[in-house]
Amino acid sequence: MSTSETFSFRIADRLAGVDSSPVRDLLEVVSKEGVISFAGGVPDPDYFEVEDVRAAYAWVFENQPQRALQYASSEGEPELREQAARRISRDLPTTADQIQVTTGSQEGLFVVAQALVNPGDTILVERPTYLAAVQAFDLNGAHMVGVPTDEHGVLPDELERLIGEHHPKFVYLIPSFQNPAGICMSMERRRAVADVLLRTGTALVEDDPYGELAYAGDPMPPIASLPGMSAQTILLNSVSKIIAPGVRVGWMRSEGPIQFTLTVAKQAIGLQSPVPDQLAVARYLETADVEAHLQRVRPVYAERARAMHAELERVLPAGAQITRPDGGMFLWVRLGHGIDTTRLLQIAVEEGVAFVPGTSFYAHDPDESTMRLSFVTHGPDVIREGVDRLRRAIGRYLSERD
Amino acid sequence: MSTSETFSFRIADRLAGVDSSPVRDLLEVVSKEGVISFAGGVPDPDYFEVEDVRAAYAWVFENQPQRALQYASSEGEPELREQAARRISRDLPTTADQIQVTTGSQEGLFVVAQALVNPGDTILVERPTYLAAVQAFDLNGAHMVGVPTDEHGVLPDELERLIGEHHPKFVYLIPSFQNPAGICMSMERRRAVADVLLRTGTALVEDDPYGELAYAGDPMPPIASLPGMSAQTILLNSVSKIIAPGVRVGWMRSEGPIQFTLTVAKQAIGLQSPVPDQLAVARYLETADVEAHLQRVRPVYAERARAMHAELERVLPAGAQITRPDGGMFLWVRLGHGIDTTRLLQIAVEEGVAFVPGTSFYAHDPDESTMRLSFVTHGPDVIREGVDRLRRAIGRYLSERD
Repeated sequence: MSTSETFSFRIADRLAGVDSSPVRDLLEVVSKEGVISFAGGVPDPDYFEVEDVRAAYAWVFENQPQRALQYASSEGEPELREQAARRISRDLPTTADQIQVTTGSQEGLFVVAQALVNPGDTILVERPTYLAAVQAFDLNGAHMVGVPTDEHGVLPDELERLIGEHHPKFVYLIPSFQNPAGICMSMERRRAVADVLLRTGTALVEDDPYGELAYAGDPMPPIASLPGMSAQTILLNSVSKIIAPGVRVGWMRSEGPIQFTLTVAKQAIGLQSPVPDQLAVARYLETADVEAHLQRVRPVYAERARAMHAELERVLPAGAQITRPDGGMFLWVRLGHGIDTTRLLQIAVEEGVAFVPGTSFYAHDPDESTMRLSFVTHGPDVIREGVDRLRRAIGRYLSERD
Repeated sequence: MSTSETFSFRIADRLAGVDSSPVRDLLEVVSKEGVISFAGGVPDPDYFEVEDVRAAYAWVFENQPQRALQYASSEGEPELREQAARRISRDLPTTADQIQVTTGSQEGLFVVAQALVNPGDTILVERPTYLAAVQAFDLNGAHMVGVPTDEHGVLPDELERLIGEHHPKFVYLIPSFQNPAGICMSMERRRAVADVLLRTGTALVEDDPYGELAYAGDPMPPIASLPGMSAQTILLNSVSKIIAPGVRVGWMRSEGPIQFTLTVAKQAIGLQSPVPDQLAVARYLETADVEAHLQRVRPVYAERARAMHAELERVLPAGAQITRPDGGMFLWVRLGHGIDTTRLLQIAVEEGVAFVPGTSFYAHDPDESTMRLSFVTHGPDVIREGVDRLRRAIGRYLSERD
């Protein structure tokens, strides 16, 4: 017997205990409080190509309104799959029918996990790795093991050793300007990693949202494009970083029977992606100058990355390690000194600045003195002010502790 | 050791065996072959309010372009949650913060399953029930048990007996113009079902996409609005049937701690729904005359329902049972005579007509002589031609069998 006042849903074990997340609560208030947030990977909206996107949506509703409003296929709209294939084909020959559209990359990660992960399966991930991927894999019952990394990405020897030890369902990598560390895997390292994966017959899930945000030199080809790798890789892309995140348009490339499995999973999870956004993004990719947009954004973000790095070097305690990204959106700090960044965040928010504590980015054995900072949202002046607030927060943290 | 030619992904057990679906293959070709399809629940695009929707999207990109393109919250855009709450409040007082936006109802069903279902949990469903819900629950490890129904919906005594026997995690019902059977639960039956759920303390997942497509009389209030039920119900709605399905905008209403669990699941599955569609739908619901649209559509679909029912009565073998829906999109046929509609479909497609065989809509022990037909896509003349083709297909089936 139960009354409406006392009813409690019996939630699934996979989500037990998620009701308390102090970090989530803190980060939820930052936008309302005049806090300078380096927490989200939030692009500067002043650099969205508003006119081009508006024109793309207008074209869709002018030319194909009924189609935009009707049910469509789970695989995705043909024009969008065509544009996605065309972009990937710059590095790896790809046909439209090898593309599965997703409602952003996050859905793609969840689709992959549904399609591949049995409860208890091991997945190898970078150490640290993207927290929302960890969450998607975790909810599907995966056991994650972190592969040690250096400034060029995962260590091939460690990768091979851990593959031998764990026989993982797949390896999940973000080779270009990794979230959270900002690291870009060198070509040599990509080849060495591909070699390990090929020799051991290990599947790769390659997440490449940031590849085109390369500030110095050309974007690196994905590991999927190295000889022999395409058939054993699921490659994920999205337009969040080359157009805008709000439209939630992503895709994944795969070959062979796995394509159908991915489509069935996608269908069960979300039937199909919204049609207006798919058609508008396809139109945009066909008619707008994506390269010109990227050339406009890259130097802006590069300047911000430099500014944040320089400021952090100036104010952080001696011994702190700071990555120096040549692309992407994130910079990774290891403060050391026994500082717990989850506790630091509370003081930081009081001082008016926010970041993401590093612990969430570890599959296990987190380094509690790490933090992720995004440098793309604010201009150099705001970055300087935010880092100065961070300096004050660290000072308070250390003096309150002592 | 593996080469690219021989690599096979090891897919998850939950998706093992999905690679062969003859029905899916058949239904995929129907649109290309001049076949009259009664298979999908595909609204007639001639009745989309194209101008109003276009104006809503144009307004969004005119007034809030940067916001439409930026990251946003997992819960959904405030204006849309407000509009959703306003609509539900006609029957059940609801605030915007009780609304979780989803990318269509299918994502809502998957979110609910992630949040509530442990592998091996039992869910009670109507017999027959919506096949895509079965798929979403099944992929999350649920064991489904069908509750017998009559022309007023599930039988309360059977429901109570099966709750006692199985202690289900929740009961999943589509009370209004159910997919696939087209049945609308009477008020008396709704009260009796609520009484059972309250007495046994059983959670309800109430799916209500069709409620406003009531052709005779006012839409029925959801079971969630009956005394005591709101706190133990998750109520799902979408705009697929009141605006258009292509925009993939849905929402669910819940109360208490379960809301946060649903949001965390939604975040892991898809981060957030696309912003342009959310803002455009909110604008549409605020400014367009939804009731006028429904008054335009209802008599059109009512006429089609009558036409299909009359034609089927005329041509089907004696003893066939046909539901007579007063709303929604679907009509359900039990042919009897030992006819297997999965085999019939093959002949039907050759004759130029398609439907969905009924077996997919059963959790267990399917009645193989059943089929679902949608009456909303085509006008009465095409319906008559399609049913005549179905008559020929059944004739061929019976003569080939004899």
